[in-house]
Parts: sequence; structure tokens; C-alpha cells
Amino acid sequence: MNYVERRLRLASSLDVPALLVTGPVNVRYLTGLASSNAAVLVRADGSATLATDSRYLQTARECAGVEVIEDRDVAAALLGPGVAVEGEHMTVADYRRLGGDMAVRTGVVESLRTIKDETEIDALRQACALTDQAFADVADRIAPGVTEREIARMLESRMTELGADKPAFDTIVAAGPNGAVPHHVPGDRPVGRGDLITLDFGARYRGYHADMTRTVALGEPAAWQRELYDLVRAAQRAGRKAVRDGAGAHDVDAAARDLIAGAGHAEHFGHGLGHGVGLEIHELPFLGPDRTGRLKDRVPITVEPGVYLPGRGGVRIEDTLVTRADGPELLTLTTKELLVL
Amino acid sequence: MNYVERRLRLASSLDVPALLVTGPVNVRYLTGLASSNAAVLVRADGSATLATDSRYLQTARECAGVEVIEDRDVAAALLGPGVAVEGEHMTVADYRRLGGDMAVRTGVVESLRTIKDETEIDALRQACALTDQAFADVADRIAPGVTEREIARMLESRMTELGADKPAFDTIVAAGPNGAVPHHVPGDRPVGRGDLITLDFGARYRGYHADMTRTVALGEPAAWQRELYDLVRAAQRAGRKAVRDGAGAHDVDAAARDLIAGAGHAEHFGHGLGHGVGLEIHELPFLGPDRTGRLKDRVPITVEPGVYLPGRGGVRIEDTLVTRADGPELLTLTTKELLVL
Repeated sequence: MNYVERRLRLASSLDVPALLVTGPVNVRYLTGLASSNAAVLVRADGSATLATDSRYLQTARECAGVEVIEDRDVAAALLGPGVAVEGEHMTVADYRRLGGDMAVRTGVVESLRTIKDETEIDALRQACALTDQAFADVADRIAPGVTEREIARMLESRMTELGADKPAFDTIVAAGPNGAVPHHVPGDRPVGRGDLITLDFGARYRGYHADMTRTVALGEPAAWQRELYDLVRAAQRAGRKAVRDGAGAHDVDAAARDLIAGAGHAEHFGHGLGHGVGLEIHELPFLGPDRTGRLKDRVPITVEPGVYLPGRGGVRIEDTLVTRADGPELLTLTTKELLVL
Repeated sequence: MNYVERRLRLASSLDVPALLVTGPVNVRYLTGLASSNAAVLVRADGSATLATDSRYLQTARECAGVEVIEDRDVAAALLGPGVAVEGEHMTVADYRRLGGDMAVRTGVVESLRTIKDETEIDALRQACALTDQAFADVADRIAPGVTEREIARMLESRMTELGADKPAFDTIVAAGPNGAVPHHVPGDRPVGRGDLITLDFGARYRGYHADMTRTVALGEPAAWQRELYDLVRAAQRAGRKAVRDGAGAHDVDAAARDLIAGAGHAEHFGHGLGHGVGLEIHELPFLGPDRTGRLKDRVPITVEPGVYLPGRGGVRIEDTLVTRADGPELLTLTTKELLVL
């Protein structure tokens, strides 16, 4: 990881003498330091000063090419004339406390982060491989009587055992009618024959987040379930095929959404098609009907259409991919055939 | 959990017509909704409106006593004349986007959250019991050759298996010289005979966070190690004994710190003595040399002195306790005798 190069790229994009970076993920991206209390000042000449408290000081001193200062009030320690702050990471309370007259910039480091280097893509590929393996290992243990919560724990334990830092986010397991709730929290409902079960989970590896959803059937699915599955699967395929360098965020979304709307389910797909992944589970770019911007080469992104029928159930299918010059590289490799358990 | 009563307590403390609550943990505290995109407007008469997007809508509608509206831009949907915003949860970017002229309040819901009801304390007690059990189950498996990272994973997997929502925070396992780094990230260093090993971890249960640290010895400890351990243990005991309704945050810290300073290690204890725990792993109140305020009845708090010797190693011992009228109730019950493995 060439942190010096990342800071130089940032420096060359600045329209102010210096940017005070306080978003924890941005600090990690620019220095390697993962800390709940650190900030880095990057100047237009590419030089940088990292501030943190005593708990992280020794780790901070191992970061290459930055001056390190110890101060618990990391933002105050680094502010000075001409320094702009990160508008989406500094709170109103801190902004006022620190003077309230600093220039504000937004999305500067986030924009740099959208295009990944191969080290980052390797970490994501490994995070996705752990996710695939956990699915393979746990699928056999999904049987009538096991609860949503137990399935979620099995997936999370298995990912950790396999070498994940931790789960990339709180695992969703939604069975039967709960499948109609996109962000259902796994509960004590035992899964049963006739259920579609949506599993949305992923591993974090070296800070990078995988995101995958599969919907499986417990017992032979009813005709309406298979029909719903086939529709979402076709929409997901169309979305994936639209992922390419230069594609519009709106157009990729539409490629999947139009199929769902054409089947009369426009109102049953209420969220965007996908989002960037990296050091955060949700990061730029976002795919949706009202999203602008275009994909570029080496941008990891999820494609995750869903159809949710209140009171009945739902289907969501999601992969993590990365744009490549010659078409998207699929990182989550688990089959999208409807698995009947 | 009586969310209506919590909102009434908040309403009666307001000095503005309404508070727009955007901190996710505060929204959960006041409504029960755990969401990454929700806000609740609480008015001085106690009435409340909850805004969220389609993903969380069905769950939001199950929250008692609040009007629910669907809007992806949750803050914009709820703002109006006389509405104050949460200064430490709204970003400068959002504040400006939404007009930049709203009244700002800080720490309002956080202050209410410091004193827990018995349902909350029950959840914390259970979180601590899972933490104790995981320690007991994993301690036997700590042996020469096992890496820090493997020990961390064993603790986290075991907590999840036992019924935790998830680990309360990223587990710290720091062996030998790494023990001198308070927030060491577990690495591939195998533990060996002669190491002190610091294990700082906890379970989250029903949203509530346990926090415990134990330092164990692998093989018979050297005289300096046992001396360091005994010092930190005495300081931790002194800190615990100072925890009571009415005690000053500075005084509780001093009770432990004075012992460490008296032994010549003032500069080797660079962090505060403890912090509140609840729906967050670090919340009000904080114990430290420059902290003000007094503890009250039913305030869960950690007591965690440490001594860190650069290049050699360190010891930290931490419990989660809760203030009670007749003295603190200890929630983490694992022995503080030096465990020699």
C-alpha cells in the first residue's frame, strides 16, 4: 500500500493550502492508521502531519512519511490558517468549537477512494472468497427448525474462523414473510418448509468489505416463488452486464429496474441497485434512479435488485463485482441457481 | 423498554420547541428502531415523528406511539421552524445543506442515557456473563504457538456462539512487548512462554456493550511482571472502590492513578480510567484527570487502569460495573488473580 502516493494524489487535487482529514476511514486510507481518534493534515505540497492520542501513538509512529504529534484533541492540534475541513466528517458542534470559520470541502478523499489499486482489489477478492466459503459451509446446516438468528451466527462464526477480520456488517437472515423486509434483523423464527430465505452477509478482510446476498428455498418452491426468483435473477444479470467503465449510475440501475417494473413490481423494489464497497461497506459510487456520475475502471460495486411482497416474502440476489476494461470481474462466485435445501 | 416514557423525559428537558434527533443510537434509544438512516423529531409536548427510508419502513411502523413518515432524506423531512439539531451528530455539510440557521444542542439525549433502567442493566449483565463465559472457554486454548489473531478469533466466535449479537468492539490481544500498546491490533505473532498477554474484549447483547480486560501470564511470570500485575490490580481495586453515587469523575480516576504514580509509573498510564457503557461501547460519563461531573445511581462504567512499558510489555485490568446506592455492582465476574497458563 503506497500511502505516500495516495497523499500526493490528494495534494494535487486540493484547491486549498491544506485539508484536515478527520473521517476515520479516510485517515486509514491515507496513512494506514486505524484509530477511533486520529486526524491527518495533508498540505498542497504533499507533506502530512498525523495527530492521535497516547493509545495509538506507537502505531502511528510506524506510518511511513508522516510527522506524528500526540494530542487528544486531534482536530484542534492540526488546524491553522488556510486549512479546510471535511464537511461530512466534522460535526456542527466541533466546527463551532474550533472557530466556525474554516473552509469546508466534501467528498474529496471519498472520490479518490472509488478507484481501487490492485492491492485493494486483492483484499476484496479474498473477502469475497471467505464469504463464498462460509456460504458453502453453512448451507448444509440450514434445515427446518433452525432459527434465523442461528443461521446468522453460523455464517458470522464461520467467516471469522476462516480468517475474516470480522463480519463486514450485521448479517441479515430473513425467512418466509420476513423476506419482504429488506433490512430484517434475524430473530427467533425457525425456518420451515416452503420458506424462501434471504441471506445477506459478507466478510471483512484487511479492512475491505465483501457483500453478497443469496435467496434459497427450503423444500420445493411454489410456482410464485420460482417465478419471483427467476425475475430477480434476470434483473440481477441485466444489472451486472451493464456494469462497465463509463456506464452511468442511473443507466446501470435502469437495466435491472426496467425488467422488474415490466413484470409489474416497480413498487416492490424500493431501494437502489447497488453501492461501492471498499474500506466501508457503503461508499461511492451509488447506483439508483436518481444517481448521477459514471463508473470508471477498477471500481468495486454491488448489484443487488430485490422484489419484496408485503406479508408474503421476497427475493434479493447480490454480487460484489469490479469494473474492468474488458467487462466486470465477478468477486462473489457462489452460484445463482436457486438452491433448494 | 418504555420508549414513550423516554421521549417524555426528553421532552420535559427541552428548551426549544422540538429536537431533531439524528444520532442512530439516540434514535434507537428513543424509538427502538435500529437503522442506518432514520431520525426522530421529539416535540416539547412529547409527541414524535419518525422518518426513515423504505428499507426500514415496516420495522418503523412497529414502533409504539410515533407517527412514521417515509423519506430517504430523513433530516430534511422533519425540519421546521423552532427545531434544534443535535450538534455532535449532524455534520457541517448537512447543517449547511439544510439551511445553516437552526439552533444547535449537544449531549441532550446522551445525558438522559447515562442513567440506565433495570431492563438495560439486565442486558448489560447478560452481555458481561457471555464475556466471562467466553474467557473461561478460551483460556485453556491459549498455549505457546497460538497467534494473537487466533486468540482474538476464538474469543469472538465463542461469544457469538453463546448468544451475543456480536463482539462489542474489535478484540485486542497483545502479547509480550505488544502489551505496551494499549490499542494493539492482534497480529500473527505467536504467544510464547514468558509473555504477559492482555485480552480486551466484550460481548454485545440486545444492543448493550460489555467491556472486560484481563492480563494473563504464559508460564511462570518474572518478578517484574508479577510486581507490575500486583500494582495494576491494586490500582484497579482502588478505582472500583471509589465508584459510588456522587463520586467525582476526577476523584475516581485519582483513586487508581495515585497508586500508579506513587510507584513511579505516572507516565506509563496515558489514558483515562474508564467510560460509560450502554448502547455504545464508549459513552458518558468518562473518568479521567480532567473530567468533571459526578456519578449517579445506576450508571454502568468501566474501571481499567493500565501500565505500559515501551519495548517490554504491559498490564491492564478492566471490569464493567454499575453504581448502586449501596456500592458498585460488579458485572464482569472473571477472577482478577493472575492466571498462569
